[in-house]
Amino acid sequence: MKLATLRTGAATTTAAVQMGAETYLPLPASDVGSLLAGPAWRERAEETMRSAPASAVVQVSRTQLAPLLPQAGKVICCGLNYGDHIQEMGRELPEYPTLFAKFADTLAGPADELTVRGSGRVDWEAELAVVVGATLTRADEAEAAAAIAGYTVANDVSMRDWQNRTLQWFQGKAFDASTPVGPVLATADEFDGSGFEVRGYVNGELVQRGHTRTLVFGPAKLLSYISQFTTLRPGDLVLTGTPGGVGMGMKPPRFLQDGDVLTTEIDGIGRLENRMLINQLALTN
Amino acid sequence: MKLATLRTGAATTTAAVQMGAETYLPLPASDVGSLLAGPAWRERAEETMRSAPASAVVQVSRTQLAPLLPQAGKVICCGLNYGDHIQEMGRELPEYPTLFAKFADTLAGPADELTVRGSGRVDWEAELAVVVGATLTRADEAEAAAAIAGYTVANDVSMRDWQNRTLQWFQGKAFDASTPVGPVLATADEFDGSGFEVRGYVNGELVQRGHTRTLVFGPAKLLSYISQFTTLRPGDLVLTGTPGGVGMGMKPPRFLQDGDVLTTEIDGIGRLENRMLINQLALTN
Repeated sequence: MKLATLRTGAATTTAAVQMGAETYLPLPASDVGSLLAGPAWRERAEETMRSAPASAVVQVSRTQLAPLLPQAGKVICCGLNYGDHIQEMGRELPEYPTLFAKFADTLAGPADELTVRGSGRVDWEAELAVVVGATLTRADEAEAAAAIAGYTVANDVSMRDWQNRTLQWFQGKAFDASTPVGPVLATADEFDGSGFEVRGYVNGELVQRGHTRTLVFGPAKLLSYISQFTTLRPGDLVLTGTPGGVGMGMKPPRFLQDGDVLTTEIDGIGRLENRMLINQLALTN
Repeated sequence: MKLATLRTGAATTTAAVQMGAETYLPLPASDVGSLLAGPAWRERAEETMRSAPASAVVQVSRTQLAPLLPQAGKVICCGLNYGDHIQEMGRELPEYPTLFAKFADTLAGPADELTVRGSGRVDWEAELAVVVGATLTRADEAEAAAAIAGYTVANDVSMRDWQNRTLQWFQGKAFDASTPVGPVLATADEFDGSGFEVRGYVNGELVQRGHTRTLVFGPAKLLSYISQFTTLRPGDLVLTGTPGGVGMGMKPPRFLQDGDVLTTEIDGIGRLENRMLINQLALTN
């Protein structure tokens, strides 16, 4: 099953992706997170899909796709999680995952223009993201694996100048509407457990390619680890880190320019395609 | 005006603090953040205070005080912001504020027991916290100052072992229900702008004392800076950092023990008093 969050005027609705491009069946929940937080979400979605009349199906353009989880309570990201990316950053394989937080406000839709002001070093980080489907408190890996609702695509777009102003990356990672997420939640049952190839492109040029089998901390391990200190809930989002090939690691470093198109893709889930609007206005302080 | 959030069974209500100890007038909003998010919160609160019958006033014990902002959308903290604390950590005065995030789940009530599992290095950080009262996007300092609803007391209790596992402090700062906040929001009009003395005690022994006039980034400057990259909204909370005297900086380092009582106090706002329950259970991973 593939689920999206559609914009409907000022509100949103969850929808199940139908056969055929850009065809969706709205489901009775305001967004994917709200569906997951309700009881028996899978059965409710399947029942709607069985019983809905053909007339209930809608066609929408990709720009009507909202950030998959516009109300996510927790968005937690793992840095330095691919062996090759860790090496390009000049670090050693870690004993513990490096974690930081974003806000729901940080998320953007899969075809949204990404407006960034005040940074001249906007970089890409193509990532697999895990959507939490059940409440997890001090869970072991098996419990965490069973609580994965499914997977989506994200790009942890990073303002490297802000990220490196201080020891804590947060301010360069939490610009409003800078992290595209989507286009869909592909439920865990759609996959055989062999992992995902994550690819990133700038203006059609492949700049990142990595496979999640090389993750130091895989999805279940990450969720279990996080749940030791904070409760994860349905609709929370965990970004698993980015493979090698970020702009900052290039020689010379390369950053996104105004008008660039950033594409992020995982087979079996889908593609984000975001135009960058980088105007570098002066800040007030 | 002083506002609190009271526990009422499984729910909460905002209340105005009345003359006399532990006496509150419930207001029509579920918590302080929800009151601030509504229109004309000050006028609505004042009108209720004028028109409510004496029978509306309730007496509650301190343990019924909820975390002041149990639904805070954003909790953003500044590290290394007092000159003396920066020196004890062996660092130089910063050009930019060091920022990191917590969750609403991280907050605890002003008299709650603080249960921490899996850490043997639980440390204290007494802080002034700023409550946002209006929406702020790329605000200058004057706008930010006008948007301060008021002030409260917080203790950014930090699990130093987890904080120092990786480069990012987040995981040691985001344990559920570990950051007490309250007891009240004291509105900005109650103060003359000369700042606050922040004090922290362990089992009655004074361990931290600092004055916010020595902050590198004061409340309005912090809010303005944050609003350059993310929108602040009514009920958001910004912790301004801690003065010198944390346990990690002592020689030898000193950490909180099971049963210790942590007290955090700012004159004109109030006092947090939290007993530590530190059991150091083994983790599952």
